[in-house]
Amino acid sequence: MIQTDILIIGAGPTGLFTVFEAGLLKLRCHLIDALPQPGGQCSELYPKKPIYDIPGLPEILAGDLTKNLLEQGKQFQPGFTLGERAETIEKQEDGSFIVTTNKGTKHQAPIIAIAGGLGSFEPRKPLIENITNYEDKGVSYFIKDPEVYRNKRVVISGGGDSALDWCVFLADIASEVTLIHRRNEFRGALDSVERVQELKLIGKINLITPAEVVDIHGDDHVEAITVKKGDKNIHLETDYFIPLFGLSPKLGPIGDWGLEIEKNAIKVDTLDYQTNIPGIFAIGDVNTYEGKLKLILCGFHEATLMCQSAYKILNPGKKFVLKYTTVSGINGFDGSRKESPKAVVKAIV
Amino acid sequence: MIQTDILIIGAGPTGLFTVFEAGLLKLRCHLIDALPQPGGQCSELYPKKPIYDIPGLPEILAGDLTKNLLEQGKQFQPGFTLGERAETIEKQEDGSFIVTTNKGTKHQAPIIAIAGGLGSFEPRKPLIENITNYEDKGVSYFIKDPEVYRNKRVVISGGGDSALDWCVFLADIASEVTLIHRRNEFRGALDSVERVQELKLIGKINLITPAEVVDIHGDDHVEAITVKKGDKNIHLETDYFIPLFGLSPKLGPIGDWGLEIEKNAIKVDTLDYQTNIPGIFAIGDVNTYEGKLKLILCGFHEATLMCQSAYKILNPGKKFVLKYTTVSGINGFDGSRKESPKAVVKAIV
Ligand SMILES: Cc1cc2nc3c(=O)[nH]c(=O)nc-3n(C[C@H](O)[C@H](O)[C@H](O)COP(=O)(O)OP(=O)(O)OC[C@H]3O[C@@H](n4cnc5c(N)ncnc54)[C@H](O)[C@@H]3O)c2cc1C
Ligand SMILES: Cc1cc2nc3c(=O)[nH]c(=O)nc-3n(C[C@H](O)[C@H](O)[C@H](O)COP(=O)(O)OP(=O)(O)OC[C@H]3O[C@@H](n4cnc5c(N)ncnc54)[C@H](O)[C@@H]3O)c2cc1C
Repeated sequence: MIQTDILIIGAGPTGLFTVFEAGLLKLRCHLIDALPQPGGQCSELYPKKPIYDIPGLPEILAGDLTKNLLEQGKQFQPGFTLGERAETIEKQEDGSFIVTTNKGTKHQAPIIAIAGGLGSFEPRKPLIENITNYEDKGVSYFIKDPEVYRNKRVVISGGGDSALDWCVFLADIASEVTLIHRRNEFRGALDSVERVQELKLIGKINLITPAEVVDIHGDDHVEAITVKKGDKNIHLETDYFIPLFGLSPKLGPIGDWGLEIEKNAIKVDTLDYQTNIPGIFAIGDVNTYEGKLKLILCGFHEATLMCQSAYKILNPGKKFVLKYTTVSGINGFDGSRKESPKAVVKAIV
Repeated sequence: MIQTDILIIGAGPTGLFTVFEAGLLKLRCHLIDALPQPGGQCSELYPKKPIYDIPGLPEILAGDLTKNLLEQGKQFQPGFTLGERAETIEKQEDGSFIVTTNKGTKHQAPIIAIAGGLGSFEPRKPLIENITNYEDKGVSYFIKDPEVYRNKRVVISGGGDSALDWCVFLADIASEVTLIHRRNEFRGALDSVERVQELKLIGKINLITPAEVVDIHGDDHVEAITVKKGDKNIHLETDYFIPLFGLSPKLGPIGDWGLEIEKNAIKVDTLDYQTNIPGIFAIGDVNTYEGKLKLILCGFHEATLMCQSAYKILNPGKKFVLKYTTVSGINGFDGSRKESPKAVVKAIV
């Protein structure tokens, strides 16, 4: 059982910044995310696009914002359960909660911060009848660890940035990379499209377009697929089949946790972004209140106020004094310390 | 009369970011600040110190944060009235407000955003009986434009960073720089102290310590001062006398504007940070509400929500649709445009 002070569901920008604000208050965090990497929408949907409205950062790529937030929280050693969806919650007699994921991982904490954004990102799956039989047996909708594919034959299908970028990346790792798309046209960043074109011309990527995967074969693991191209059916041997058709967010299981829901979001009090269940907070895109804006900078403020309240719940009666990071410096849980150079008092002679 | 959509009182980080958020909504801003430069506490009190809790910026000098915020708002061409204190406010028949400064400059706007922080920064003045007679006649408590001192004789008094840094800066501009401090010890950044020491040794700065300025002479302008060092009185000719004894913030005149005040701050509604007077908002350190934290990141959120409300007041009935900067790009009032490179749709052959 994983135990922590604040269990954060969702490792988007809001969840990541919570780690830092909690750390300032000496509270430890653990994050669960359905995606294989942290960053939420920023890393999954637009990592290479610039954001212009992060205060103090006139322009930053969404992927770099994620990196910066991870860096900022690093001193506070957050734990991560990635690639798993928080599924159920149970309140314990001691007031704490146990959250279990779809893969059975259990987490216990006295405070829950739901930073689930638009919901858990679930892959769009191709309509192949027997595909679910092969999930985790050669079929994946994400690439979690590219090393799995070293010297293997891989088929990717899809026509967007993820399909293009992973083909390029795996071209150096896998023994064979095939890209299948139902059109000849791809939609992505110019350099990704051009790079795939080059790799195709030198034979490092096989391209089958316009075409569709219609069947999967193999006993205990993917061994081959059937590709339909026009009237022809092609039998293609492969070790892995990775459809990258994008992700769609679903509030999902959290919708059944007894929280007050409005417009597909969780209703909170603006005092501290607590939900109708004491000890469960909702911050960032996932919450709603009068005047709510689904902006990253608002999630940062909500996370900060929420951590104050969590601190008070966990330290009843203890007097809290706000300290400026500039003045007090930061003591990481890893023993590191950041601090501003102190002024000297020195005679001039 | 200066006219604008949102008149911002206080050019600290909160006021500066308001320019950007207002600009996204096509609203123009003008800022008034008692200080000669923008940045509020960040630029006046700790420009060279790092802040660690700006989300997405693991470490940034307060002075650089100010620069970044100015850069971020630049496209929206804010106006500035610097070195003047907003003194009075009058509501007009058309619902707009006229704000007049201590120097008589008048500003008119339908929306007022008070982002006054801890209050207007007022200099601590030395106890010299006739000093007020010489204000703006050779005596200044700030350095607004260093060029004023080119080839002039300047006396600075004080023992902290401002006194040290301005001595160093003016050593290359003024014909003569004298630093007077009541102790031999100075308190500042190590490199500032060392630089003054060097300049003293090569004769570019005269140092008189421990000593105090006790009198000022001159008909229409400063011509000389009397410096008391131990039992001796020294008569020193100079063109300027600049006591840099620090600033202390005072809520000041805003306290008499009929706003609801609590704990020396302005009470607001957390819906949109509006005060008890419709059309007047208070954001950043200057406001108070249950759970308020005097942090920069909170001011950013408050400014953003406030601008939404200002937009609705100024555009009654118009439907507002939130746009992501990443998706829509930014059109500056100066004709500039920022936007993310678009995805291409291209065949791979
Ligand atoms: C194309 C695009 C451009 C944008 N541009 C801007 C912009 O310029 N400025 C701006 O401020 N905002 C912008 N946004 C919005 C911004 O990305 C979101 O406001 C922000 O990502 C919200 O952060 P969050 O941490 O609250 O949620 P998210 O980023 O949505 O992260 C939530 C995470 O929670 C996970 N999760 C949810 N439920 C579960 C569960 N049950 N179990 C496990 N994990 C779960 C999800 O998988 C996800 O990773 C843009 C969004 C898009 C799509
Ligand atoms: C040493 C120090 C370290 C700090 N460290 C941190 C930190 O690590 N993190 C953090 O989040 N915060 C920190 N803070 C606090 C942070 O600086 C403030 O929260 C922030 O500056 C508030 O911004 P603001 O724009 O609301 O107000 P301010 O920065 O106070 O600016 C208000 C401005 O309004 C002007 N003004 C007020 N009244 C009038 C008037 N009537 N007419 C004209 N002008 C007026 C003032 O002159 C001032 O320039 C620190 C503060 C100090 C002093």
